[in-house]
Amino acid sequence: MDLQKRIDRNLEQAITFATAGGNPSIICDALRYSVFPGGARIRPRLCLAVALAEGDEAPSASNAAATAIELLHCASLVHDDLPCFDDAATRRGKPSVHTAFGETTAVLAGDALIVLAFETIARECLATPDRIAPLIGVIGRAVGMPHGIIAGQAWESEKSIDLKVYHRAKTSSLFIGSTTAGAIAAGADPQNWYRLGEALGDAFQVADDLRDFASSPEEIGKPCGQDAAHDRPNAVHELGLGGAVQRLQDLVGQAAASIPDCRGSDMLKQLILGEAKRLVPKSLATVAA
Amino acid sequence: MDLQKRIDRNLEQAITFATAGGNPSIICDALRYSVFPGGARIRPRLCLAVALAEGDEAPSASNAAATAIELLHCASLVHDDLPCFDDAATRRGKPSVHTAFGETTAVLAGDALIVLAFETIARECLATPDRIAPLIGVIGRAVGMPHGIIAGQAWESEKSIDLKVYHRAKTSSLFIGSTTAGAIAAGADPQNWYRLGEALGDAFQVADDLRDFASSPEEIGKPCGQDAAHDRPNAVHELGLGGAVQRLQDLVGQAAASIPDCRGSDMLKQLILGEAKRLVPKSLATVAA
Repeated sequence: MDLQKRIDRNLEQAITFATAGGNPSIICDALRYSVFPGGARIRPRLCLAVALAEGDEAPSASNAAATAIELLHCASLVHDDLPCFDDAATRRGKPSVHTAFGETTAVLAGDALIVLAFETIARECLATPDRIAPLIGVIGRAVGMPHGIIAGQAWESEKSIDLKVYHRAKTSSLFIGSTTAGAIAAGADPQNWYRLGEALGDAFQVADDLRDFASSPEEIGKPCGQDAAHDRPNAVHELGLGGAVQRLQDLVGQAAASIPDCRGSDMLKQLILGEAKRLVPKSLATVAA
Repeated sequence: MDLQKRIDRNLEQAITFATAGGNPSIICDALRYSVFPGGARIRPRLCLAVALAEGDEAPSASNAAATAIELLHCASLVHDDLPCFDDAATRRGKPSVHTAFGETTAVLAGDALIVLAFETIARECLATPDRIAPLIGVIGRAVGMPHGIIAGQAWESEKSIDLKVYHRAKTSSLFIGSTTAGAIAAGADPQNWYRLGEALGDAFQVADDLRDFASSPEEIGKPCGQDAAHDRPNAVHELGLGGAVQRLQDLVGQAAASIPDCRGSDMLKQLILGEAKRLVPKSLATVAA
């Protein structure tokens, strides 16, 4: 089964669990809408790719970890789009959750996705119960306070920001959570996979900055120019356009080089280099070539 | 150690974990503000009281469960007070979190408290790892979709409400979560403690309706008359004042009668009857006498 199908099948099971009975109906619709159709599913793909590279001896555990990570990512998108944050009317090329279902439902849907993520890990790891605590440990760290994506969003309210700490929390943390959770789910040492998550997360943040700067809303399915509009730090402002593209390429190279020796390392390197090509906005493809 | 001190000490440890390093500073302050000083801590008291009645053989597990339950309760208060929900300016006699720290920080603080709750269970149950999945199971069910407090809030957006299902989700679910988690943490059968949580949750909902109807803001530390203002169901409207007070007393009696035979059953019955007296608004004490 290809990764995308495997991810969506497991997300479908989680959403079915949370919406059993179909009531209350509005939030049930909003939960499904928040998760389907998905974006690139890059974080759960990364989690499963690491698990597969390490043998994926407990697929229920890796499925649970990948599902939880994507549910938490979707929750963060739903809350980030709220009027008090980015006030984004669109996401993934359709109305954002609060635009489609109202603000109260959007807040509650995000909350429910967070709870569902941890329930999924606890429920689906029955065959490998010793992996529940370490999985929740690395995934909780990746999303919560003081180092996860919630902290990253919270940095935007601070008067003074350390750009590196901010980007680490806002973006890299969940990539690190994805690689290390994939390793734990497969019974491997998460430390060997920390650098891959870190480098890819840094690369993804630079790519996100490039897309915000240089893409069209049609290409990325959400508003552009948000960093400039909200006076947020952006790698293009810091390094210039050419410098930011170079930095992205360096980070992808470091990511590929960090992959430890294991039975699936060659497969994973190809996957990383393939994913990296999707990160560059179309309008910058010639700059990056 | 008395229950209140035990609860606050464990909440303090959890908040210290989430705010390690003190940054980002605004949300760190908001997290502490959301949890301290607390209200009656009735749910974690109930969780620990059940664990103690069953012998409390693994205090780390019962502490973790009680802490997680109170963190989730605090998260729900922070989000319920937001402008798009109750738009409450005060809570526990002080400005609500969004009033004090702004709306974005309030959304993120609630999110962070939810994550912290599940991290706490995973981290603190090292001596009893077999209890992590069942604890997350009952606590996740108590707060998440489709039967937990998030579903309860979500019912308020529906055009047609089954009052019993709504109250079960909004209030009783977390009381059931508290009693059953206390039992699981102590290695006991959670089914024996389901009815206690259910009856107390129903009683608490009736008491909450009475307070919203008959108290002053000074007595309960938050605005009154919210149910009428938001056209929400309320037991006083349904049963009349005398009928609602009688219903409350019946439920407390059922709760006390449901306590199973165990070494701490007498202690627990006294605790329940004592707590019940605090539930009645002062202005109704003569009606309830």
